[in-house]
Amino acid sequence: MNYGDLTLHTDKYQINMIYAHWKLNRHNQVRVFDAYFRKNPFNNGYAVFAGLERIVHYINALRFDEDDIAYLREQSEGYEEAFLDELKRLKFTGSLHAVPEGTVVFPNEPIIRVEARIFEAQLIETALLNFMNYQTLIATKASRIRRVAPRDMLFEFGTRRAQEADAAIWGSRAAYIAGFDGTSNMESGKLFRIPTVGTHAHAWVMDFDTELEAFEAFAQVHPDHAVLLVDTYDTLKSGVPHAIRVGKQLEQRGHKLKGIRLDSGDLAYLSIQARKMLDEAGLGYVTITASNDLDENLIFDLKAQGARIDAWGVGTQLITAADNPSLGGVYKLVARKQGDDYVPVIKISGNPEKITTPGMKTVYRIVGQHGKAEGDYIAFVHERVKEAKKLKLFDPVHTYLQKDVTDFEAVELLQPVFEGGKQVGRLPGLDEIRAYHNNQLDLFWDPYLRKMNPEPYPVDMSETVWNTKMDLIAKYK
Amino acid sequence: MNYGDLTLHTDKYQINMIYAHWKLNRHNQVRVFDAYFRKNPFNNGYAVFAGLERIVHYINALRFDEDDIAYLREQSEGYEEAFLDELKRLKFTGSLHAVPEGTVVFPNEPIIRVEARIFEAQLIETALLNFMNYQTLIATKASRIRRVAPRDMLFEFGTRRAQEADAAIWGSRAAYIAGFDGTSNMESGKLFRIPTVGTHAHAWVMDFDTELEAFEAFAQVHPDHAVLLVDTYDTLKSGVPHAIRVGKQLEQRGHKLKGIRLDSGDLAYLSIQARKMLDEAGLGYVTITASNDLDENLIFDLKAQGARIDAWGVGTQLITAADNPSLGGVYKLVARKQGDDYVPVIKISGNPEKITTPGMKTVYRIVGQHGKAEGDYIAFVHERVKEAKKLKLFDPVHTYLQKDVTDFEAVELLQPVFEGGKQVGRLPGLDEIRAYHNNQLDLFWDPYLRKMNPEPYPVDMSETVWNTKMDLIAKYK
Repeated sequence: MNYGDLTLHTDKYQINMIYAHWKLNRHNQVRVFDAYFRKNPFNNGYAVFAGLERIVHYINALRFDEDDIAYLREQSEGYEEAFLDELKRLKFTGSLHAVPEGTVVFPNEPIIRVEARIFEAQLIETALLNFMNYQTLIATKASRIRRVAPRDMLFEFGTRRAQEADAAIWGSRAAYIAGFDGTSNMESGKLFRIPTVGTHAHAWVMDFDTELEAFEAFAQVHPDHAVLLVDTYDTLKSGVPHAIRVGKQLEQRGHKLKGIRLDSGDLAYLSIQARKMLDEAGLGYVTITASNDLDENLIFDLKAQGARIDAWGVGTQLITAADNPSLGGVYKLVARKQGDDYVPVIKISGNPEKITTPGMKTVYRIVGQHGKAEGDYIAFVHERVKEAKKLKLFDPVHTYLQKDVTDFEAVELLQPVFEGGKQVGRLPGLDEIRAYHNNQLDLFWDPYLRKMNPEPYPVDMSETVWNTKMDLIAKYK
Repeated sequence: MNYGDLTLHTDKYQINMIYAHWKLNRHNQVRVFDAYFRKNPFNNGYAVFAGLERIVHYINALRFDEDDIAYLREQSEGYEEAFLDELKRLKFTGSLHAVPEGTVVFPNEPIIRVEARIFEAQLIETALLNFMNYQTLIATKASRIRRVAPRDMLFEFGTRRAQEADAAIWGSRAAYIAGFDGTSNMESGKLFRIPTVGTHAHAWVMDFDTELEAFEAFAQVHPDHAVLLVDTYDTLKSGVPHAIRVGKQLEQRGHKLKGIRLDSGDLAYLSIQARKMLDEAGLGYVTITASNDLDENLIFDLKAQGARIDAWGVGTQLITAADNPSLGGVYKLVARKQGDDYVPVIKISGNPEKITTPGMKTVYRIVGQHGKAEGDYIAFVHERVKEAKKLKLFDPVHTYLQKDVTDFEAVELLQPVFEGGKQVGRLPGLDEIRAYHNNQLDLFWDPYLRKMNPEPYPVDMSETVWNTKMDLIAKYK
């Protein structure tokens, strides 16, 4: 798998900061950074974490090659040769904890935690956020679409409108994690073993003198895989009758037409009529696929209108997350290591939700007696949360909102991925990730997951974390 | 430059179509496809074509390697070995014409024309659109931003929010084409020799006990390149006074503070106050950079409020084209070659603007006496437009809108890039493309270029093309 050379896929200010740390001989000091996002995309109630495998490969491949060094040597900053030598030797020696891919995650909880020499921790910020932000965004969009069509087939068809090749390829992976059934992108299929689908375009039909000839020719070559696109001329007057004729011909040859695809017009009306025509012709097994700028709202609406669509090809709206095309994930310094201690660090802001939560923290999912999640709980790593008999969950903004929980299981979400520069976390296969993601969804009551106006899920913090944050805020005022 | 292996970066239906053409022994037949878009993004009056260099490299590198073939062999379609052998031998043998990168282009005119064996022409559709759509989209967004800040410095800062790595890297290239001055992305700087910029983040300031210490330390290492981020604690009470102090220290050491950066708060008010404070301290040369989710509307508004900002760091909104995150470029079959003739082909649609314009066409920019473009003119390749003394320009929708032009120069926009599989077009350097783009803008009256409610620029067709289209529509009715 070719991940390219992405060591310079970073912002210049990272290089300028690590250069300054190096000049001041601070570069070996160890720092802790949390990666998290502040707001769910699409006004959704949750996000689906994805992108970790990409991050792991990136970190494992992190090396400045000669070209990179030569390029840095030209910069007007005048980086010293000894610094460039230090870069040549650079590899990741730190630790990284992350929630597993497919985890249902929420705003303001650490989903990746990096503990490393500031030299390395700073360098990797840009790429780490780039990968986490995009795949998490697309997995979340895909999850919204899956929820409105729980039993239908869902295919990712967005490559031509994706924001360049990586987006198409990694985006279809993210969609598959969150429950899509396949993609049209062959490179993605090859790299990730995602099922690939697709039969023909309008150009196939236009290349023959008549639509019927085009369908017959296609079915001759693909007798068991043909999904005929029926809207080139007139869906109900031409496309569907021709598809039915070809379906009957295939039956006589011992084959079955796989399906038809609708790509324009009133998909509710057309699918209902097409279903009726197919059924009356004895072709009840022929599936109907729809495409044409679909998203979760359109699919929800079409289903409410009784559309008879078995499979949905979702393109632009999914692969670009069109209604919210970025996840605002951030990577914030939270602690400086001094000896064996982690000294918490805070960033103050006039904007209260931009104030960071200081310290070397982890996050637990508190699962109650019904097997349902009661809330997530951010604590310092040294706090003994798993062993606690009772936890006080309180809202970090409206602190009067409190509840005590007992009889719970505290599941630690952040798992070790790198320790001392060595990859210690196994990368599960995509099917394992999909199954895990499904189990994750089962942890949550529906109100947290619904598409419109979801109930906010509680992400709380331990009293120790809260007090530390308040003390630091007071110190800076 | 590593472009990766993108031969399988295509939709499965392309493979299934070319397989069927091969099985039916139609694969060597030559077809003509036009690539164009139907609607300007952002309600802009024009788009800026970009992505050609990427397409050229992709086509030159087009080869199915053993892994690709092995993957195809596994597919349930059961592709025959002789077909896979044909794929192994595949390279592009056709012709491709395109408008040069940086050209100002409009809806419904061909911006790329491919003439090739259907085998090849179909295969490359997906990647060609993917590359054209994204870079053209970002170049257009960047052009909108450049127009509201014609004399300011503009930097692309979006990598962390880009839709994966390729988008960050190719997007910053597209922004540079349309007039941005630099990027923060070092990989893009290395690949394309785009100037790179960036100094430090909040994490730098937070890593020191005080902001002043952080600024002093940074300025010590970067005495001539320091742009100090002044909003970590309090911009006007702390950040700017500390920056001034460091600026005065630098002067004593024979250096100059380069600038300050504002990243939150009321950028109009803060920049005006900061400018006043800097000027009063004798630091009139210190520049002010602003960032924080900027786009052309915010920048326009800030400038109207008298903001004293010299340089703008534009991130998410640019790199994701957030308000319109895809260009709907399409690639349509327009002619089948039979002997030496090109037989025009049409796609009918209930939606009139989706009806294609048939035939082997090219496009001219009709430049009048004032050196300004009067309209673009789509004609068949065999029509003698350059030599004509008079042209009738008429609107292809509202045909009563007509004008005759004389004393014009007809500049053919589509230029040969590949002929008979060989690259014949030179790829200009980025600075040449930028200069060409600037000259392109000079061709147009302002009303076509303005940000809000631009005047629609005429894209007309020859009477021959129009009549052919009407005849084919009539034939299918």
